[in-house]
Amino acid sequence: MPSPVAFTSRPSAVGRARLGSLTTPHGVIETPQFMPVGTQATVKALSPGDLRAAGVQVLLANTYHLSLRPGHERIACLGGLHRFMGWDGPILTDSGGFQVFSLAHLGKVDDDGVTFASHLDGSPQRLTPERAVEIQEALGSDIAMAFDQLVDATLPPAEVAVAMQRTHHWAERCLAAHTRADQALFGIIQGGVEADLRRESVAAIAALPFDGIAIGGLSVGESKAQMAHALEVVAEALEDDPRVRYLMGVGSPADFFTAVEHGIDLFDCVLPTRVARTGQLWTSRGRLNMRNARFLDDPDPPDSECRCETCRNHSRAYLAHLFRAEELLAYRLSSLHNVTYTQDLMRRIRQALDDGSYGTLREAVMAEYGVSGTRSDKPPVTGR
Amino acid sequence: MPSPVAFTSRPSAVGRARLGSLTTPHGVIETPQFMPVGTQATVKALSPGDLRAAGVQVLLANTYHLSLRPGHERIACLGGLHRFMGWDGPILTDSGGFQVFSLAHLGKVDDDGVTFASHLDGSPQRLTPERAVEIQEALGSDIAMAFDQLVDATLPPAEVAVAMQRTHHWAERCLAAHTRADQALFGIIQGGVEADLRRESVAAIAALPFDGIAIGGLSVGESKAQMAHALEVVAEALEDDPRVRYLMGVGSPADFFTAVEHGIDLFDCVLPTRVARTGQLWTSRGRLNMRNARFLDDPDPPDSECRCETCRNHSRAYLAHLFRAEELLAYRLSSLHNVTYTQDLMRRIRQALDDGSYGTLREAVMAEYGVSGTRSDKPPVTGR
Repeated sequence: MPSPVAFTSRPSAVGRARLGSLTTPHGVIETPQFMPVGTQATVKALSPGDLRAAGVQVLLANTYHLSLRPGHERIACLGGLHRFMGWDGPILTDSGGFQVFSLAHLGKVDDDGVTFASHLDGSPQRLTPERAVEIQEALGSDIAMAFDQLVDATLPPAEVAVAMQRTHHWAERCLAAHTRADQALFGIIQGGVEADLRRESVAAIAALPFDGIAIGGLSVGESKAQMAHALEVVAEALEDDPRVRYLMGVGSPADFFTAVEHGIDLFDCVLPTRVARTGQLWTSRGRLNMRNARFLDDPDPPDSECRCETCRNHSRAYLAHLFRAEELLAYRLSSLHNVTYTQDLMRRIRQALDDGSYGTLREAVMAEYGVSGTRSDKPPVTGR
Repeated sequence: MPSPVAFTSRPSAVGRARLGSLTTPHGVIETPQFMPVGTQATVKALSPGDLRAAGVQVLLANTYHLSLRPGHERIACLGGLHRFMGWDGPILTDSGGFQVFSLAHLGKVDDDGVTFASHLDGSPQRLTPERAVEIQEALGSDIAMAFDQLVDATLPPAEVAVAMQRTHHWAERCLAAHTRADQALFGIIQGGVEADLRRESVAAIAALPFDGIAIGGLSVGESKAQMAHALEVVAEALEDDPRVRYLMGVGSPADFFTAVEHGIDLFDCVLPTRVARTGQLWTSRGRLNMRNARFLDDPDPPDSECRCETCRNHSRAYLAHLFRAEELLAYRLSSLHNVTYTQDLMRRIRQALDDGSYGTLREAVMAEYGVSGTRSDKPPVTGR
């Protein structure tokens, strides 16, 4: 059947970086693009109106979480995930593979699938490639992901290889199970940090008729250098593949640049909203933690260069007060800012790729974000 | 000095109910009017933009809380409360009297003022009439309240009388201490549920040059009948007084009607937002608790007659899910709805007083809200 998504791209003067456009059943996504994460059918603390105001073009929701609560059949009966959460733009659903990895201590993997205990009530759960596709079809996302087995990239290569082979078999089963003509299905490359395994995985996944190609298993414990090397290997191997490329789970300002230069088009991460809820704002002056006492008397906006409602209407002093008082508004104003910052950064990257100013932008952002903070920004056990 | 507020009103055909207009330094308030409570310089979970969308014309902030955190001097240095919280409409500040009552177990009242322990860190705090005025002048609200001593209305009359006399003395001291020409000062009538004491308090407070008259000490433990009777007595005694009348701490749908009929112009209460955060929505079909399992599959909006963002964009099923998942968006969407409902109810009351349909409106709302729920809606210890 014809693909429900269409991707076109043109090269830039910067490495393998490209500018593109991904047309989906619910709208067009300009690439490179970042997807905020709405784990439980809401990007934490933000409404669909906030997301639109921030410039969000596509979001990610979690298959595993939604299948447990409120249940994918329920969402299907209510008209699908878009209507359920009041978001009429594109949605990508993950396949649950990352959660199975996160909850590995609760489960057991075999060649057919994964058995594990619900993080909500301990009830036994089973995910297989067919089940992951079935759930995502019920949710009705624009883009579904193949069910993969993610492992710690720093495990012995033999163990990484077993999970990778399983991922390849599961990829074929996902394609066979997938029936929705209005939903794209993306494959996932695994293989840890070994160049040979990564090349083998690209060959296996890229050979299959997926609508897009994702790179999984990075940003999960390996070093920055290992991640950059794995990206390099994958980018080279994918060079002639015209499909959209999605680097899963990456979302810190510094990491975008390396990935974009390796031809990555899509990103997702909980980072912008998660760190926001702890008081950390991403600004044109780098990271600012609103819990810091020095902001209590600061009348300036969080980021004077930002156009978001938070920066237009409120001071650092007000945010510092709201965080100290544990007021709900703190989480919303900070999340709105960080999502806006991230969207604006992606827009600036696209603009810079277009007008030749990429080097200047990279230098400015890396000066603020290239040094520290990324390791402590790692996702915790549940929720991507 | 001339009053910084101007109140005009005209009678209606309903009891002592009237339609009015209170002009303040930050805008005009149509009366009868309800003020949502922004205890810590934020109406919990809502932004200033949300409040405007809900139709809010004036809000209340708490002197006691803000003096402790972030501190009224700090707010003054940052340009005053309006700028601090990003709300450019009228603000009324309470005087701290209610919090002193709530925190009575932490403090000691004498004729000069009140000594008590901070609910934040236990540090010793002192409030006097002069201090309450000083804090409110620093905050820069449009309307400041005199410092009063509130007591349980069901105490022996002799004890209620002592607190009332003290309130009268403190009222004079507040007037003497007050200096801001751009800030109104309202007096507070006390006297519990005894008709004689209430009449005595009206005589004492109404004789002073306050810009408005508040009725305190109700909705704090007395029965509905006792409250109605006290209101009746006060309304009769205030009959020829042209000033705006504010019934403090009242905000359930059923209570508005009795009070409006006794000539009340202003209300405040934490109820709409507090019950919202527990899942209780006020709708044209009465109270609906979104935590109820029957809503999990309900595709209808919370209130099909409501114009708020929540009801325009989201289903009961989505709210039921958000509350179960303890998502931050639940508190915002429910608070936005309840504040909108309350504002719309006040608007409908004003409209009905104007067009003669008040009886029909009263009957419809009392059928949904007149029976139960008000006692469990009582404010808890801290925060009005």
